[in-house]
Amino acid sequence: MKEFDTIVAISTVLGEGGISIVRLSGDNALKIVSEIFKGKKGRKLDDIKPYTMRYGHIVEKETGDILDEVLVSYMKAPRSFTAEDTVEINCHGGVVATKKILEEVIKSGARLAEPGEFTKRAFLNGRIDLSQAEAVIDIIRSKTDIAMKSAVQQSEGKLSKKINLIRNKLLELIAHIEATVDYPEEDLEEMTAEKVSNKLEDIIDEMKNILSNADEGKIIREGLNVVIVGKPNVGKSSLLNELVSENRAIVTDVPGTTRDVIEEFINIEGIPIKVVDTAGIRETEDLVEKIGVKKSKEKIKEADLVILMLDVSRKLDEEDIEIINFIKDKKSIILLNKCDLNDKISIEDIKSFDTSYVFKTSVKEGIGLDKIKSSIKNLFFKGEIKGKDIIVTNARHKNALIKAKSSCDAALDSLKNTLAVDLASIDIRNAWLSLGEITGETLEEDIIDKIFSEFCLGK
Amino acid sequence: MKEFDTIVAISTVLGEGGISIVRLSGDNALKIVSEIFKGKKGRKLDDIKPYTMRYGHIVEKETGDILDEVLVSYMKAPRSFTAEDTVEINCHGGVVATKKILEEVIKSGARLAEPGEFTKRAFLNGRIDLSQAEAVIDIIRSKTDIAMKSAVQQSEGKLSKKINLIRNKLLELIAHIEATVDYPEEDLEEMTAEKVSNKLEDIIDEMKNILSNADEGKIIREGLNVVIVGKPNVGKSSLLNELVSENRAIVTDVPGTTRDVIEEFINIEGIPIKVVDTAGIRETEDLVEKIGVKKSKEKIKEADLVILMLDVSRKLDEEDIEIINFIKDKKSIILLNKCDLNDKISIEDIKSFDTSYVFKTSVKEGIGLDKIKSSIKNLFFKGEIKGKDIIVTNARHKNALIKAKSSCDAALDSLKNTLAVDLASIDIRNAWLSLGEITGETLEEDIIDKIFSEFCLGK
Repeated sequence: MKEFDTIVAISTVLGEGGISIVRLSGDNALKIVSEIFKGKKGRKLDDIKPYTMRYGHIVEKETGDILDEVLVSYMKAPRSFTAEDTVEINCHGGVVATKKILEEVIKSGARLAEPGEFTKRAFLNGRIDLSQAEAVIDIIRSKTDIAMKSAVQQSEGKLSKKINLIRNKLLELIAHIEATVDYPEEDLEEMTAEKVSNKLEDIIDEMKNILSNADEGKIIREGLNVVIVGKPNVGKSSLLNELVSENRAIVTDVPGTTRDVIEEFINIEGIPIKVVDTAGIRETEDLVEKIGVKKSKEKIKEADLVILMLDVSRKLDEEDIEIINFIKDKKSIILLNKCDLNDKISIEDIKSFDTSYVFKTSVKEGIGLDKIKSSIKNLFFKGEIKGKDIIVTNARHKNALIKAKSSCDAALDSLKNTLAVDLASIDIRNAWLSLGEITGETLEEDIIDKIFSEFCLGK
Repeated sequence: MKEFDTIVAISTVLGEGGISIVRLSGDNALKIVSEIFKGKKGRKLDDIKPYTMRYGHIVEKETGDILDEVLVSYMKAPRSFTAEDTVEINCHGGVVATKKILEEVIKSGARLAEPGEFTKRAFLNGRIDLSQAEAVIDIIRSKTDIAMKSAVQQSEGKLSKKINLIRNKLLELIAHIEATVDYPEEDLEEMTAEKVSNKLEDIIDEMKNILSNADEGKIIREGLNVVIVGKPNVGKSSLLNELVSENRAIVTDVPGTTRDVIEEFINIEGIPIKVVDTAGIRETEDLVEKIGVKKSKEKIKEADLVILMLDVSRKLDEEDIEIINFIKDKKSIILLNKCDLNDKISIEDIKSFDTSYVFKTSVKEGIGLDKIKSSIKNLFFKGEIKGKDIIVTNARHKNALIKAKSSCDAALDSLKNTLAVDLASIDIRNAWLSLGEITGETLEEDIIDKIFSEFCLGK
């Protein structure tokens, strides 16, 4: 990336909307827009004050033709999203007009931004750290209130603050150890193996504590993959329709795929439940009937949760039993459906399951469905689901924490076995480095590039 | 519509974008947003200056939770799009966050806007007239540069200006006639039938002039319906693919339909050519083979232009000839395709067509395709296609002009037959009223409502 050139992108979703925004960031942002701007009575933008707007038109440079009526707003560095001079052209929506304005801005000297480049600049310019930057895209992609609030917390820097506190403790420890080792003659408080161990244990506890709800965090951010399996006509698609119609969250296009593939999320108590589009639903419905047990098993392997529907009016057959055995070690909910009919399934058949998650239901009659919701919550969440707590939602952050914790564990081991504090300090330094990956301080450039490349255009 | 309450809507296209805007208009706009806004150091919005922005957060009223980082901008009445106090909340994109902010604004006292209600208010408040308001949505929906520029011209009021000039002339005429009739004793220049006729003829000429390119205008705004017909394997879908891949304009969802129906526009020299989605393409391809001549004829009836493809390597059969006879009076382009093969079609077979629009082509070899483009231009446009001229693009405007012209013609008739200027003045008044429908001055409220209801939400 050429760091200090001026970039531009359409920052709103492109389509037939009421307003579109073309955003520029960089030293020349104002100069570039000024060249194609015509205000009332010919006013340009050179005297526009920061944090104000000016009404006017964007004109085509070559012909002088008016392209659109606009409001131009100006945010002066460093008080902007990118911490650079930023200009936003707020124009009538529509695809052609917005693209045309983008084109003119590029002709006037801006470069088309890469995906995530605005946020990347905010990061490179030190306005936000990496975990805050990642939270920005999490806000945009969030599927439920809880996911959104959790991302907002992270974007406000609450996770970083926690991580930085631990990093500082590690750094202090390293400094102390090094001072003791390097200047034994000085009158410093000696860092004995025991003292270091004690401090490390506290730090490890803190990390454990943060990690304790990382699995929940992952679910909040990414959603839960649920697969519904069962025999033909057991009521799978009815159940799905029921869940979807009551709890529909968001239907989004999956970037990079054709229009045909969409993801559907349903929102159960704030947990985004991912259902892969109607084709997926149909596939789920046909799991046993068409694609057989083998394919069912594949789907089950990918799932976070299996909902097995059994028809109490029919006896279990071999395939049912094969599936039952297969999902024994999976988080599962068993629905004894059609409970309004004659029950032909014995408790013995399903004895391998936790009875807390076996329910009599009748999807048709609307019986027992509320238990699915509470089960999902109980199976994946320890307590109340809140978006307010700082939780690690990002797998990258979780892995960095796990690495850091391992290093601390290793340091603890060395101390126990050798009592050599200087050896331990290498591991402690590694822990410090690993945690720095979360905030981006110690992350390599290509990984940072990769993270931002997954952002959307214009952000 | 409750005219003076405060309305709100999401004004950007909803999706996973970098920025979304929630817009309010009305007397309480600032007060409502202020209640859920938390600026730096607790600043509210009560001291925000017009045309400035303030950075802060939108908070959930009930919990105090931060919903998103925002920039709030304020435009004071009457210097805003609606001519009312307007507040825009510029937030991180995303569906959940944006909807959540909308919800909070509604909870704080705003009403969800109806489609087009912002623009309607701009009209009702007298900031723009109806034809300008209609141009706003035309800008958003425009499919080509020319369509966009033409809509921009109209939004700037250039059409209205022209219409108002004619209306004023009509009004002057009426005033003169009435004065002559009512106060014959006064020393006024008498409006003889001849004088009135002369003036009317000038006005009729002006209207004719405006109407002369209304058909072109309609095409620019709405696009051209093109249907490609021909036998199986003559190369219809290859031609379509060729045209689409080279000239793709915009693919949009058709409002109110399922995701499956999309319209595809291709841009040929600025003319939007409408092709009804891939299903439509397939249907076109299969026209003769599957749905037969009857269905072909239906498609042809709806089309503005028929492109008939004939395979020169095969002799014409009965169905070909039936289609040829059927499209005789339609604007058509005949492609003698596969011209690289042996020619088995005689000129006699296609003698009913204007030879200027009969071409030897080979879609496979890329021969002759450029002629299709120039033909489309020649068939529908008299001269250079420009977006700069004032043209009537809207069927509603065209019809009002035709009505007005008819009234003037009728007035001219009365004058010729009866020499009674006072009789003519009734028709002249009708012409004046009809023209007023274009700018909305003389249009009934329910028709105005209908026009705005077809706008998009948030505009």
